[in-house]
Amino acid sequence: MSFKVNIGRSFLLRAKHNSDVIDFLAEFAKYSKITTASFTAIGALKSAKLGFYDQKKHEYSEMLLSVPQEIACCIGNISLKESKPFPHAHAVLTDSKGNTRGGHLLEGKVFAAEVHLTELTGAKLIRKNDSVTGLSLWTSQRNISSKLCL
Amino acid sequence: MSFKVNIGRSFLLRAKHNSDVIDFLAEFAKYSKITTASFTAIGALKSAKLGFYDQKKHEYSEMLLSVPQEIACCIGNISLKESKPFPHAHAVLTDSKGNTRGGHLLEGKVFAAEVHLTELTGAKLIRKNDSVTGLSLWTSQRNISSKLCL
Amino acid sequence: MSFKVNIGRSFLLRAKHNSDVIDFLAEFAKYSKITTASFTAIGALKSAKLGFYDQKKHEYSEMLLSVPQEIACCIGNISLKESKPFPHAHAVLTDSKGNTRGGHLLEGKVFAAEVHLTELTGAKLIRKNDSVTGLSLWTSQRNISSKLCL
Repeated sequence: MSFKVNIGRSFLLRAKHNSDVIDFLAEFAKYSKITTASFTAIGALKSAKLGFYDQKKHEYSEMLLSVPQEIACCIGNISLKESKPFPHAHAVLTDSKGNTRGGHLLEGKVFAAEVHLTELTGAKLIRKNDSVTGLSLWTSQRNISSKLCL
Repeated sequence: MSFKVNIGRSFLLRAKHNSDVIDFLAEFAKYSKITTASFTAIGALKSAKLGFYDQKKHEYSEMLLSVPQEIACCIGNISLKESKPFPHAHAVLTDSKGNTRGGHLLEGKVFAAEVHLTELTGAKLIRKNDSVTGLSLWTSQRNISSKLCL
Repeated sequence: MSFKVNIGRSFLLRAKHNSDVIDFLAEFAKYSKITTASFTAIGALKSAKLGFYDQKKHEYSEMLLSVPQEIACCIGNISLKESKPFPHAHAVLTDSKGNTRGGHLLEGKVFAAEVHLTELTGAKLIRKNDSVTGLSLWTSQRNISSKLCL
């Protein structure tokens, strides 16, 4: 399923110290009236919670990382879920020994984080429950390449 | 070697469940007549094959991951190789314990994957064998900063 | 703190074999008169140095990786520090067994690396010492959403 989008406003963000990085992104999107976006982020977190989705049981297991982590990389997008901008972010985090953990970034308490976020316009992506995966995935009337898609 | 490009069409893609993510990207590029692009992706794979390039022997070793993986991050580009759009993707994958493996993403069976792909126009990047590394690297007549380059 | 930026020139770069990837990016920015940018990179390094920031002691510890690494992912930005373009890059690196290390990419000797760099214009981001974190973070007069910010 493909959604052609236009590139809208672009922002460099310095996430608020001690905020939750996912909440920060959701609030920024709401404040800036952004419904769809793509972003990357680097920085450091005081603590974090990662999720791993069980593809058979259709449920997340969570891993709490209670010590400081570098955000070695974070990639994500924003789209609408239940009419609100919903950040979907995955990340690889690193402890003081350089050891890495990764997955769905559910929470992350910001030490310092730099985000490049680009608004995408022209398509309305809405997350709805997908029965095959159990996940909230993009749906839309605008599907320009249905031959390639589910 | 630097190639100045223009930003073309931009897409959010929901990769087809059970497809191979690399094939999906190659088919999307072919279908959409995209020869050059940059992309990021997150999601989950049912299985994957990663490659690591031996810099001395000039050959890939492969690692098959036969259990479900989160795509903690995936970054890549598309350019022409043997006249066809060729996706070059690297990824960090995570198992149910949050443990990470990474490298060149050779194959990945999609559970669910979200891709932000941006077409790049105005430069024709063609992969050709590079004798120094043994890899297929970009070549072009358009080299705007040769002083910095090989 | 948010900085609205405009998307400027975009480049695909093949980093110079045997160069230091951070120096390569700084030199490219200087040569191309780029003061602000966002980039992603993939490829392989002959060796690398990663940093992890101690959030209490306010100092970096360093880890030298003296054997070849895949750049499983690299995300970064360029902004001005002491009046010069300063690349800030984080990366996840992978050895021949697929094992990963990550953090702040301080040095990396290029085997082969492909970078997508996009210039960002219209805002002047300058790194200055931040007393709370001890890091050099973005400051600017242009702060369009101060309610969300430090």
